[in-house]
Amino acid sequence: MPAFNPVALIGRQNGAKSTELVDLLGQFLTARGCEVMVEQSTAEAHGIDRFAGVNYEGIAARAKLAVVLGGDGSMLSAARHLAPHQVPLVGVNQGRLGFMTDIAQEHMLDAMGELLEGRYSIEERTMLQAGVLRDGQTLFSTNALNDVVVSKGTVGRLIEFLVHIDGEFVYDLRSDGLIVSTPTGSTAYSLSSNGPILHPSLTGLVLVPICPHTLSNRPISVSDSCRIVLTLRHGDDAQLHFDGQPHFELREGDRVSVHRADNTIRFVHPPGYSYFAMLRQKLHWSGMY
Amino acid sequence: MPAFNPVALIGRQNGAKSTELVDLLGQFLTARGCEVMVEQSTAEAHGIDRFAGVNYEGIAARAKLAVVLGGDGSMLSAARHLAPHQVPLVGVNQGRLGFMTDIAQEHMLDAMGELLEGRYSIEERTMLQAGVLRDGQTLFSTNALNDVVVSKGTVGRLIEFLVHIDGEFVYDLRSDGLIVSTPTGSTAYSLSSNGPILHPSLTGLVLVPICPHTLSNRPISVSDSCRIVLTLRHGDDAQLHFDGQPHFELREGDRVSVHRADNTIRFVHPPGYSYFAMLRQKLHWSGMY
Amino acid sequence: MPAFNPVALIGRQNGAKSTELVDLLGQFLTARGCEVMVEQSTAEAHGIDRFAGVNYEGIAARAKLAVVLGGDGSMLSAARHLAPHQVPLVGVNQGRLGFMTDIAQEHMLDAMGELLEGRYSIEERTMLQAGVLRDGQTLFSTNALNDVVVSKGTVGRLIEFLVHIDGEFVYDLRSDGLIVSTPTGSTAYSLSSNGPILHPSLTGLVLVPICPHTLSNRPISVSDSCRIVLTLRHGDDAQLHFDGQPHFELREGDRVSVHRADNTIRFVHPPGYSYFAMLRQKLHWSGMY
Amino acid sequence: MPAFNPVALIGRQNGAKSTELVDLLGQFLTARGCEVMVEQSTAEAHGIDRFAGVNYEGIAARAKLAVVLGGDGSMLSAARHLAPHQVPLVGVNQGRLGFMTDIAQEHMLDAMGELLEGRYSIEERTMLQAGVLRDGQTLFSTNALNDVVVSKGTVGRLIEFLVHIDGEFVYDLRSDGLIVSTPTGSTAYSLSSNGPILHPSLTGLVLVPICPHTLSNRPISVSDSCRIVLTLRHGDDAQLHFDGQPHFELREGDRVSVHRADNTIRFVHPPGYSYFAMLRQKLHWSGMY
Repeated sequence: MPAFNPVALIGRQNGAKSTELVDLLGQFLTARGCEVMVEQSTAEAHGIDRFAGVNYEGIAARAKLAVVLGGDGSMLSAARHLAPHQVPLVGVNQGRLGFMTDIAQEHMLDAMGELLEGRYSIEERTMLQAGVLRDGQTLFSTNALNDVVVSKGTVGRLIEFLVHIDGEFVYDLRSDGLIVSTPTGSTAYSLSSNGPILHPSLTGLVLVPICPHTLSNRPISVSDSCRIVLTLRHGDDAQLHFDGQPHFELREGDRVSVHRADNTIRFVHPPGYSYFAMLRQKLHWSGMY
Repeated sequence: MPAFNPVALIGRQNGAKSTELVDLLGQFLTARGCEVMVEQSTAEAHGIDRFAGVNYEGIAARAKLAVVLGGDGSMLSAARHLAPHQVPLVGVNQGRLGFMTDIAQEHMLDAMGELLEGRYSIEERTMLQAGVLRDGQTLFSTNALNDVVVSKGTVGRLIEFLVHIDGEFVYDLRSDGLIVSTPTGSTAYSLSSNGPILHPSLTGLVLVPICPHTLSNRPISVSDSCRIVLTLRHGDDAQLHFDGQPHFELREGDRVSVHRADNTIRFVHPPGYSYFAMLRQKLHWSGMY
Repeated sequence: MPAFNPVALIGRQNGAKSTELVDLLGQFLTARGCEVMVEQSTAEAHGIDRFAGVNYEGIAARAKLAVVLGGDGSMLSAARHLAPHQVPLVGVNQGRLGFMTDIAQEHMLDAMGELLEGRYSIEERTMLQAGVLRDGQTLFSTNALNDVVVSKGTVGRLIEFLVHIDGEFVYDLRSDGLIVSTPTGSTAYSLSSNGPILHPSLTGLVLVPICPHTLSNRPISVSDSCRIVLTLRHGDDAQLHFDGQPHFELREGDRVSVHRADNTIRFVHPPGYSYFAMLRQKLHWSGMY
Repeated sequence: MPAFNPVALIGRQNGAKSTELVDLLGQFLTARGCEVMVEQSTAEAHGIDRFAGVNYEGIAARAKLAVVLGGDGSMLSAARHLAPHQVPLVGVNQGRLGFMTDIAQEHMLDAMGELLEGRYSIEERTMLQAGVLRDGQTLFSTNALNDVVVSKGTVGRLIEFLVHIDGEFVYDLRSDGLIVSTPTGSTAYSLSSNGPILHPSLTGLVLVPICPHTLSNRPISVSDSCRIVLTLRHGDDAQLHFDGQPHFELREGDRVSVHRADNTIRFVHPPGYSYFAMLRQKLHWSGMY
């Protein structure tokens, strides 16, 4: 009996090779006794009808594992959909390895075989919940696996906002923006903005200013039980981003509230997975520079 | 006979104290035998009619010195207007000292007295000339004292462009943007983005990537005789900024050409001016952190 | 009845004003019904005989609070002595405020009055335990409040060592050294070496490479339950430092083991203390740059 | 007639393959009509007697080109010996490419063939001259191609010194040290310490503080016509290094004077050489991170 059943497959909308890959993996799983679901828009994009096309709700309701065939961006999207429903994820990379899609395409079947036979480890990743308050009303709220980012828009002038953590005033930041990042996000945009790497097991978040006016405004890491509030003082065209994808235009006075989401997302890794081995490869630590 | 005559006064549009200050300085200069011109929009904003209101063209044609009463932003604006006409500038700061407006308001009359009696030093500052080429046509060209910046817009995704220096391919940069800065600009936005400080006497420019995807994309300083070309590959809403002020939306394929402007701008300093003393004060080098 | 009794006073060996200050505080405490002990070397250095001179063992055995009159260095030293014995510390700064000595001299008596009347908060600070293993033998072990640092010596060439965390290989680091820092140490040497600020409530440590050869060797923050092992591969004159004070010469093959100490040190703060207010002041966040 | 004649070969003292390589290149050059000299200690280390063993003086007196077979360290050493005598250098790397040894071993003969037939470019690299003044006496002076570094020694506490440029006071620096780097050195130690890359054609130097206490003590680039003086205030075991090799122990009050050397060193490059192509390869700019 396979360790995970049913299994959902989530691919990219585009990419010629995706069709084949979904097909190959679907047949492999079926042969091992798994019920296979293909995420609906993936199925439609690739004209896959051999397996049931199921939307995210359906996957959330029944799948015991979701295999993401794509890059880190695909993982982010799947995580935001599935985190509230506790469906664990595993990532197969179609190009070069990602920080999250750590199974190479050529090892896909071997790795999936291991997982189905119960040889795997589970890693929990913290997610963020963020909302915008305007005039005492919550405009909306969403979750993010990597980061919540406030940044300047097209006008190109620095923006200014107040930062509070658990109600305590931190500073009045003048910068191009601020990244609130999870450990997972610490190897993404945050890293480009001079943020530290946070190991996924650290129960912390990091606030990373983007091009701060004051040179001593360094990244600050805090416990992930903190509640962070950003209040926009100046910057009419300031933007709010979640995992680099959706965006929302802020107004002066808006308050962005960020805290750890109730749910985590779980990543499934085949035997031999090492977080640091992945970092060594992605960041060229093995070689010079 | 005053060392500079006529003298133009350029103030801020807003600021209650500007009226008084322009008035005070105008009378001081008149008493020393100087003809005084007040920049037209300054004169209008403050209802000044005691002195001739003259537009930038008039100032460019006749003034031997322009006194800027404001902050570094006012100096940047005046420099862009007056550089082609060789009118030297001196900056009086109304708030805290600026990197360029190095005369404190309370020392204004003393300092101006020194200048009129011929005790001063002249410092030449390099400016940039930048233009955009689209489909073989130069869309426009302008100059900048601090920097020319290409940056992402509201979508918030990194942009990608090719950088060539004197026709030699440098790299394919994926980042939030790139700053091409003069020595003058090296203490402005460039510094926030991890750029080095370039002494004004260095005949160099610096290319500073903003949040580069590749961590080893460090600032590169090149001779100011170089011609730098940035070719946008990806990033539909990429923006082009000059001295942080005007902006222009780039399209994929656009080429931004940046090189040293033919004209420099000259700053006039009273006796005792020290570039490093200014840095020590502005960057809190005297104290801890 | 005073909230803390007896109270130990720990001063600097040098500093003319220390004598007066110890005397003043001692009398204040006596008047409030406290038994006062003066740390022996402090008493001897300043010729204080009005209060009992007691060595660190005596303080550890009986004092309910230790007041450190000095700078952050004095706090580090007192913390290393007293942490195993659970004596809480409070710091009074004789010069400018420190990151840990957050009570200004002129507010000393008011603040102490508050503490004795039971108005205070307690903050626990994580400490490190570090030891050196050579040829299977533990050469010695000690604790540190700020950091454990491996660094190159006088020869000036980079050193090379392997880093393992909880038995997992992290990387082969070629650099001037590596800092393993607590949250408390994150605002000390680590900050100068481009490390992030860790809030004291974060249950984490940070590994900060010093001038790493590979530019992507960025600071890494891990849970403070991790066991970190550094194995020296190259660098005959590599040095080991604890809180920047004592040092020990490492040999190739030596293993430095670092983990969270069993004991924490507790800091006592008067009402109104704010960690971020302290950072704002120390790091000039209020002003420009 | 070969474009360079005689040609000196300079190898490493160790390395099994060096003997073969020197031999191979020597025969190639002889066949093209070149007189071949082998640097004496190289000849002795490898037991080479087919070609004349000549010391650096002899090479300086007669060679028209020196081929360095080794890494960047070998180039630095050869440059310090030969710069005063105007012998140009070309570097063949035995392992992975260096910043200066830009000819791969497998392309050695092709590249040398091009050079001998007159197809090459010449690049001049600025060198530094540095001396130590103690009690009004110059203790010694030497030159460096990469950098002059003042750094703390084994005690591990920060050192403090005054920096003057052309007699103007810059700052009182408290740090682990300071690097004064040429453009050539800007991709060496300076880069690890957060310094910018300076293109070799920039007539500038850069001062890069090592772990500065004050976070706004950023790298400063100045004209290479400047005279830089560092005066040690505190730090008994401060060390002075040239190109990372020799070292000298400084005393409080010592003044280290650094300026551009009278002579440059010339690098010879085969056709197709590109400085930026070399950077892209060395710094992994082509790929991610």
